Amino acid sequence: MRKFWIIPNHTKDKAYHTAKRITQWLECHDKEVIFQDTDKNGQGDWIDRHLRTKREAMEQADCVISLGGDGTIIQAARRLANVHVPILGVNLGNLGFLAEVEMKELESALEKIVRGEYTLENRMMVKADILREKESCCFGLALNDVVISRGAISRMIGFNVYVNNVFVNHYYADGIIISTPTGSTAYNLSAGGPILAPQSDVVAITPICPHSLTARSIVLPGSDVIRITFKSRRDQGELPPEWKQKESMIITIDGQMVQDLYGGDEIIISQAPQKTSLVKFSNKDFYTILRKKLENAYEKI
Amino acid sequence: MRKFWIIPNHTKDKAYHTAKRITQWLECHDKEVIFQDTDKNGQGDWIDRHLRTKREAMEQADCVISLGGDGTIIQAARRLANVHVPILGVNLGNLGFLAEVEMKELESALEKIVRGEYTLENRMMVKADILREKESCCFGLALNDVVISRGAISRMIGFNVYVNNVFVNHYYADGIIISTPTGSTAYNLSAGGPILAPQSDVVAITPICPHSLTARSIVLPGSDVIRITFKSRRDQGELPPEWKQKESMIITIDGQMVQDLYGGDEIIISQAPQKTSLVKFSNKDFYTILRKKLENAYEKI
Amino acid sequence: MRKFWIIPNHTKDKAYHTAKRITQWLECHDKEVIFQDTDKNGQGDWIDRHLRTKREAMEQADCVISLGGDGTIIQAARRLANVHVPILGVNLGNLGFLAEVEMKELESALEKIVRGEYTLENRMMVKADILREKESCCFGLALNDVVISRGAISRMIGFNVYVNNVFVNHYYADGIIISTPTGSTAYNLSAGGPILAPQSDVVAITPICPHSLTARSIVLPGSDVIRITFKSRRDQGELPPEWKQKESMIITIDGQMVQDLYGGDEIIISQAPQKTSLVKFSNKDFYTILRKKLENAYEKI
Amino acid sequence: MRKFWIIPNHTKDKAYHTAKRITQWLECHDKEVIFQDTDKNGQGDWIDRHLRTKREAMEQADCVISLGGDGTIIQAARRLANVHVPILGVNLGNLGFLAEVEMKELESALEKIVRGEYTLENRMMVKADILREKESCCFGLALNDVVISRGAISRMIGFNVYVNNVFVNHYYADGIIISTPTGSTAYNLSAGGPILAPQSDVVAITPICPHSLTARSIVLPGSDVIRITFKSRRDQGELPPEWKQKESMIITIDGQMVQDLYGGDEIIISQAPQKTSLVKFSNKDFYTILRKKLENAYEKI
Repeated sequence: MRKFWIIPNHTKDKAYHTAKRITQWLECHDKEVIFQDTDKNGQGDWIDRHLRTKREAMEQADCVISLGGDGTIIQAARRLANVHVPILGVNLGNLGFLAEVEMKELESALEKIVRGEYTLENRMMVKADILREKESCCFGLALNDVVISRGAISRMIGFNVYVNNVFVNHYYADGIIISTPTGSTAYNLSAGGPILAPQSDVVAITPICPHSLTARSIVLPGSDVIRITFKSRRDQGELPPEWKQKESMIITIDGQMVQDLYGGDEIIISQAPQKTSLVKFSNKDFYTILRKKLENAYEKI
Repeated sequence: MRKFWIIPNHTKDKAYHTAKRITQWLECHDKEVIFQDTDKNGQGDWIDRHLRTKREAMEQADCVISLGGDGTIIQAARRLANVHVPILGVNLGNLGFLAEVEMKELESALEKIVRGEYTLENRMMVKADILREKESCCFGLALNDVVISRGAISRMIGFNVYVNNVFVNHYYADGIIISTPTGSTAYNLSAGGPILAPQSDVVAITPICPHSLTARSIVLPGSDVIRITFKSRRDQGELPPEWKQKESMIITIDGQMVQDLYGGDEIIISQAPQKTSLVKFSNKDFYTILRKKLENAYEKI
Repeated sequence: MRKFWIIPNHTKDKAYHTAKRITQWLECHDKEVIFQDTDKNGQGDWIDRHLRTKREAMEQADCVISLGGDGTIIQAARRLANVHVPILGVNLGNLGFLAEVEMKELESALEKIVRGEYTLENRMMVKADILREKESCCFGLALNDVVISRGAISRMIGFNVYVNNVFVNHYYADGIIISTPTGSTAYNLSAGGPILAPQSDVVAITPICPHSLTARSIVLPGSDVIRITFKSRRDQGELPPEWKQKESMIITIDGQMVQDLYGGDEIIISQAPQKTSLVKFSNKDFYTILRKKLENAYEKI
Repeated sequence: MRKFWIIPNHTKDKAYHTAKRITQWLECHDKEVIFQDTDKNGQGDWIDRHLRTKREAMEQADCVISLGGDGTIIQAARRLANVHVPILGVNLGNLGFLAEVEMKELESALEKIVRGEYTLENRMMVKADILREKESCCFGLALNDVVISRGAISRMIGFNVYVNNVFVNHYYADGIIISTPTGSTAYNLSAGGPILAPQSDVVAITPICPHSLTARSIVLPGSDVIRITFKSRRDQGELPPEWKQKESMIITIDGQMVQDLYGGDEIIISQAPQKTSLVKFSNKDFYTILRKKLENAYEKI
C-alpha cells in the first residue's frame, strides 16, 4: 500500500487533528496521503497539496483511513463499494465493531500496515432495488441493513415477503429489517433479531413490532433473493380514507439514506457483488467487542 | 336507560343500516334515539328527528351505542370521558376486545339492556400533559395508550423516564408506550409488553426497539405518575447537526391523535379521574377473546 | 424494637464475624440479641447466652437481622410469615434487591433503627396449595415465585390455567412461573416476563419456553385466584408410554422448596394473608438497584 | 430405488395398517420391501418374509419409508446416518416439517417415487462429543438440536461457550440449545431463537432463560466448532454445598437421547460429515408449512 486516502468525520473534534498526525507519520515513512477536496473544511496549508477530486481519490487510493466511528466507516464503505479499497477504521468515539484502531494504538497500527502485518476481512453487502410501475427506479447498497418502515404519522404497514419468489408471509408491523451479519448487532438486535457471526453467509429478516406474535426473525442463505410488496394504489382505492394514510412508508439504507415508498412498489433485496474490505490486526475478536458493547449499551450515547 | 345515542362509524358499510335497525327496535320499546347532527351523513328522513347538537347529545344520553370496531369505541370513550355515559359496542368488523355485541346477537342484547340484565365495567384511562417552557400546553386522554416515538426520518430518540420523581432509566429507542390494561393487548403487545388483565390497577411502560437489551417492560401501580423528559434545545446546541435532526419526535394518543414534541418538553402521564364505562353481558370473558385474537392475529387485517 | 434475632447464612464466611460485631453494638445500646440454638454452629462462648429455641425466638423477636444475601432474606421471610416480624437485610455478597444495608453502612443503619428512623415496607406473598385426589395435601408460601416445571428427563409439560375459575389457556411449555412483584426481577425476568414495581398489587404468569409463540406473560390483580390443572393419570392411560414419562413435573417455591407433582393434581395459587415486612431507610430506591443489577447481571455469579 | 425399508412408529395406531398397504402397493410394482426383525411386533404372516436384521436392512435398503411424525424421521435419521439412505416421511399425525406425504397423497407419492419424480434434499447434522478427563467418552449425532440443561432440582447452570477456541461468553441459564436449521423451528423457537431457512449453512446458539438479558441467540457458520465448558469438580470443591447440587446437568440429543454431565466435562459440537437425505416432491414449501405450524401451534398437542 502506497497511497492512503484519509476520510475525517467533520463532526468529531479530534478528526482533523488526528488526520494531520497521520499525514505526518505516513510522509515520514515515504507514503502518499490523499484528502478529497471537499474535505478541506477550513484547514490550513498543510492539507492543500493532498487534495484530490473524488474521482482521482477513488482511482489512486490503495487504502482508506476512516477517522470517526462505525458510522463513518459505513458511509465510506458505500461510497467505495465499486473500487474495493480496503478501509482501516480509526475510532474517535466509543468502542465500535468496525473501527479497528483506538487512538492510543494509532502509531503501532500504522507500523503494522507499513510492514504488511494485517489481514483483509471481507464483509457482505446487500443491494436494494425499488421496482416502481415495473421499472427499477433506483437502488442502494447497504453494509448494515435495509429498513422498510412506516412514516411518522402512520402506525403500522402491511406487506408481503417472498424469498426466491416463494411467499413467506404477510406482515402487519411498524416495518421490517433486512440485515447483513455486520448489521445484525445494530437495529436488528434492538428489534429482537439474532446476532449473526461476521463470517456467516446469511441475512436476517426481522419484523419491527409485528402485530402477530408468530412473526419471528428468519435467517436466510446470503444467496436468497428477498422481495417485499405493498398493495397497489389502485387496490388501496377500496380502503377507507384513514387507511390510505396509514400506508405511507419509507426505505432507509444503513440508517443514512432515506426515500419514500408508494403503494404498488416492490423492493428487491439481494447480496451485492461488492464487498467491504476491512483492514484487521490479530489482537481483536468479534466476541470480545460484542460482550463489551452489550454490557455497556447505554454508555454509548 | 331511556335515551340512546347511536354513533356509527362512517367508513363501515353496515353502520347506517344497523343504526336504522336499532332505531326501529328501540322506538318499538318506548326508548328514545339520538344521533349527533354531524352524523346525518346523507341519510334520508328517518334520521332527522333524532338529530341533536353534540352538547345536547352529551347532556341527554343515558347510553351510547357504538357501531363499528374497537377503534370506534375508543374514539367515543375519549369524546365522552367527561360525562361518563356507558358505551355498548356493536361489532361490525372482526372480533374485538371492547365491542361486546356481534350482529347476530343484536336484538337479544337490546332486550337484555331494556330488562336491565347487564353490568357496567369501568376501564382506567390515563391522561398525558405536555409541559413546554414549564407551562402545561395541552393534554389528551387515552383509553389504550400514550406513545412517544421518533419522527419518520429519525432513527432513535433518547429520553429519561421518572416515576413519582424517582429516576427510572435513560432510554435510547424508537419510542416508548405507556399502556393501560385495555391497551395492553394492542401496540404494547407488539412491542413485547405483557398482557394486563382488564381489572388490574396498573399501567405498563414498554420501550420500542430499545438500544439496550436490558430495557424491559415495567408494570407500575395505576396511581404512579410517569414523567418523560428530553434534552432541551439549548443542550442540543452542543450536539453535532445530524443529532438534532434525530431528536424529532411525536406523541400519539390511542393511535388517533398526533402532536409534535420539541427538545425540552416534559410529558406527564397519570391516571385520569375519568373512567370509560362499558356495557357488559355475562356470556363473554376476556380470556376467550384473547385466545381467539392471538391465534388469528393476521385475519384481522 | 428491643429484641433482635440475628440469622446468619452459614455458608458466608463473614456471617458470624458480622453477627458478633452486631451483637456487641446492640448490647452497648441496651438491646437484646437472640440466636436460634441450631445456629450456634461451633461458635465460642459469646453466642451461648443468646441461644433460644425456634419457638422462643419467634415469640420474642421484635426484628430479624438477616446476614447474607437476598436468598437468606427470602428463606427467613417464609419462616417468619406467621409472626410478621420486620426483617433487616445486611448484605454480605453482591448487590441485592432486598438486602438493605451494605457492610460499610452497618453501624449507621443500626443507629437509625435505634433512633426509629426507618420505615416498614410490606411485600406481597403468595401461597400455593396442591389439590390431590380433591384433598389439599400441602402448601407453601412464596415471597418470590411459584414455579411448576418439567422434571429433568422430560421435555415439555401440558397444563391448563384458570383465573377465578375462568379458563385462560392450555400451555405446552417447559413450565410456568407465578411471580410476585418481589420475584419479578428473578426467574420471571429470565423467562421474558415484565418487571413489576414493588408496590404494584399484581402477580405475573409467565410461561417458560412455551411451544406456542402466542403464549405471553399475563399480569393479574393480586386478588385473583390462579388454578393450574394437569391431565389425570387415568386420562394419561390412553397416552402412548413415552408420553407419560414426559408428564413428570415438579413445583418449586422461591427456588428453595421442591416437590413432585402427579397427573391429576391441581395447584391453587392466591395471595397469602401474610406479608413480608422489610426495614427500609430512605436512601435507596428500587430503580437505582434495578439499573445496577441489569447492567451487571453476570457479575452476580 | 428397488428396496424399501419401512419403519413404522409402534405407538401410532395407523402405522402397521399403512405399512401393509404400502407393502402391497410396492410389491405390485415389482419393488422389494424390508422390515427390521425387531419391528414384527405381533403382526401376522404378511410381514414374515420381509424381516431382516438391522445390519441386513442397512446394507440393502435404497430408501427408508418412515411411518409416523417428525419424531420418527429424526430417530431414523440418526440410525441411518452412516449409510446415507434417503428417507421418505409419511405423516400419520399432525402437519410436520419433515414428513413429506399425507395419508391421502400416499399412492400418488409412491407413484412419483417409482417414476423417479422426486428430489433429494440434504439436511445438516451436528455431532456432539463429550470430553471427560481429557478423553472423548461418547458422542451423538443430531438432526435437530443438542441441548445442555439443568437437572430437575437445580435452577440454573453456569458454563462458558467458545467458538473456534475464541471465548464467546459466560452464561448462567437454564441451559443452551445448539440447533441446526432443521431444529430451529423446534425447541430453539420456543426459547426465543430465530428461524433458520433449511438450506442455510449455519447453526444457532440459543440460551434458555438466561440470567443476563444481554445473552441473545448467535448464528454461526456451519463450519464453526463450538466448545462448552463447566467448572471442574475440584473447583466446585470451593463452592458452598448448595451450589454443587445446582451444577447437576444433562445433555439431550434431538430430545430423544439423554446423558448426565459432570463438572469438568467439555462438550464439542461441530457439523457432522453425515447428512440426512430427505425425499421431496415439488408441491410443498417450507414457508407454507411454517405459517401453518405457527398459527396452529396448540393444535399439535
